[in-house]
Amino acid sequence: MPAQADGPAVVTGGAGAIGSVLVRSLLARGQEVRVIDNLSSGRREHLPSASGSQRISLTVADLREPARYADLFRQASAVWHLAANSDIRRGSADPRLDFDLGTVATFEVLEAARKHDVGRFLFASSSVVYGLPSVLPTPESYGPLLPESLYGAGKLAAEGMASAFAHNYGIRTYLFRFANIIGPVMTHGVLYDFFEKLRRDPSRLEVLGDGRQSKSYLRTEDCVDGMLTALDRAADTVNLFNLGTTDRISTREIAEKVAAAHGGRARIEYTGGERGWTGDIPQQLLSIEKISKLGWRPRYSSAAAVDRTIEEMARERGLSR
Amino acid sequence: MPAQADGPAVVTGGAGAIGSVLVRSLLARGQEVRVIDNLSSGRREHLPSASGSQRISLTVADLREPARYADLFRQASAVWHLAANSDIRRGSADPRLDFDLGTVATFEVLEAARKHDVGRFLFASSSVVYGLPSVLPTPESYGPLLPESLYGAGKLAAEGMASAFAHNYGIRTYLFRFANIIGPVMTHGVLYDFFEKLRRDPSRLEVLGDGRQSKSYLRTEDCVDGMLTALDRAADTVNLFNLGTTDRISTREIAEKVAAAHGGRARIEYTGGERGWTGDIPQQLLSIEKISKLGWRPRYSSAAAVDRTIEEMARERGLSR
Repeated sequence: MPAQADGPAVVTGGAGAIGSVLVRSLLARGQEVRVIDNLSSGRREHLPSASGSQRISLTVADLREPARYADLFRQASAVWHLAANSDIRRGSADPRLDFDLGTVATFEVLEAARKHDVGRFLFASSSVVYGLPSVLPTPESYGPLLPESLYGAGKLAAEGMASAFAHNYGIRTYLFRFANIIGPVMTHGVLYDFFEKLRRDPSRLEVLGDGRQSKSYLRTEDCVDGMLTALDRAADTVNLFNLGTTDRISTREIAEKVAAAHGGRARIEYTGGERGWTGDIPQQLLSIEKISKLGWRPRYSSAAAVDRTIEEMARERGLSR
Repeated sequence: MPAQADGPAVVTGGAGAIGSVLVRSLLARGQEVRVIDNLSSGRREHLPSASGSQRISLTVADLREPARYADLFRQASAVWHLAANSDIRRGSADPRLDFDLGTVATFEVLEAARKHDVGRFLFASSSVVYGLPSVLPTPESYGPLLPESLYGAGKLAAEGMASAFAHNYGIRTYLFRFANIIGPVMTHGVLYDFFEKLRRDPSRLEVLGDGRQSKSYLRTEDCVDGMLTALDRAADTVNLFNLGTTDRISTREIAEKVAAAHGGRARIEYTGGERGWTGDIPQQLLSIEKISKLGWRPRYSSAAAVDRTIEEMARERGLSR
């Protein structure tokens, strides 16, 4: 029972890895979809074309310039705000990156939603808001929230603003703290990095850290399904949910799997240290008890999600398996 | 044993109610003090003059324009970031206010601190980051952090950014979540509002809400003492402390005390409702267990702080008691 079939949905970052999967689901639910994307990592070809009753548009715009896109919010029933700097490590070299693309962009999107009386705001937050949590699996009620990366700071800032807008202006808000999301058409993340490294040099695979980092990986389609479940079944002023799997997989295992997909000839080299980089959260597992109570479970475990994604990436890159 | 006597201290909002008390303490510890204030609610006359060995300067600047003040960070050993929009209720009418004066300003101050290698960043956060907490007294580890006011969203955004800067650039960070701070030279808050209302119309005192709001009030000098205690005795990468008292006082009691200070002739009228305004947190009490372990205790209880402050305000306004 889609609650949102009435008005169009605005999707920022809709041409990206998660956004393009969400867009297909929204179209399938009968919604008109208005994508806003700056195409910095998203790609036009990730989006389906309008066909039959399915209405979709793409507006290429910088979210810091609301004059260029705010009209799209007219009559919209929901705004899905997924756009962000998707490369956590770059934020350390230039803190303005996550501030601009995370914090400032989110404020402008919220303002546009407020001005056009959009009823629902859905936001792609991240497990990194937990910083280095002392509790695993980490529940939504965990505190204090002391993010270590600028990316995480941007996500926390956005959560807080969305919460305040929800309370002040009646915009029902959904905040999703994602585990590592993996699937087709990625442009960053550990799987993408490993494939790229082996493309450049098939003889060795450098792994940042000691390989013992162990994290939860969620498939894009499970992630989208989780968000839609929350939208359909949760109706608080602010609805906060972790989205992840109940298992973890180590960076070492992932490296070995990706190396195997390349024929198993690469030497795997570890740079050493608990963390891959400043702001890396080496041990990550989210409690998904809260969203589970709404009836949602991921179809893929972390291990299965990694296997499936490696298979797709290998096929896409013409690697023999 | 002041840890910071080596280099100058930058104090944003140093001409305000809390800042001007802090400035005196820093001068007394032998530090040079460089105040930055836009004088929107701060006042030049709140600051002491330079005298003898005490060196103090005031730069009037908007924190969003770092070119106008960043040079002051040169050689500084600590930045105390106290400046903010001090009127929580105004933020609801114009969300850009807290975004600009809270979030954007804090980012620019952190950037200036990073560029000039300032070793310590101390931030005046607030109990409002807890939103409407389900646990009283609320500990620092409380979550989720879902602020209800735009002011609270700005404070949470600033905390997250400061945490990320601490982890990425080695700026040791102190985050203080304040109860309601009261003392001389206030320009906002419940005591100020009640005095102003009775000045305009001595016959009636309108109280927002049902008067049953019950909160903790901390005297400015206790607040400053708590921050200095943390600076001297805590040395984590990020040091997070609540600052408050262990008792509470109701808005009704405060209204009656202020009315009494005006001769007791005013009729007290309640607008009704649990909350005084959107974003008001009617029940507020912070756990101060963590800072207490460093040896700090407030000298004034909430009740004593309110009495003392009413006495000062009445005297200042020439009211006979």
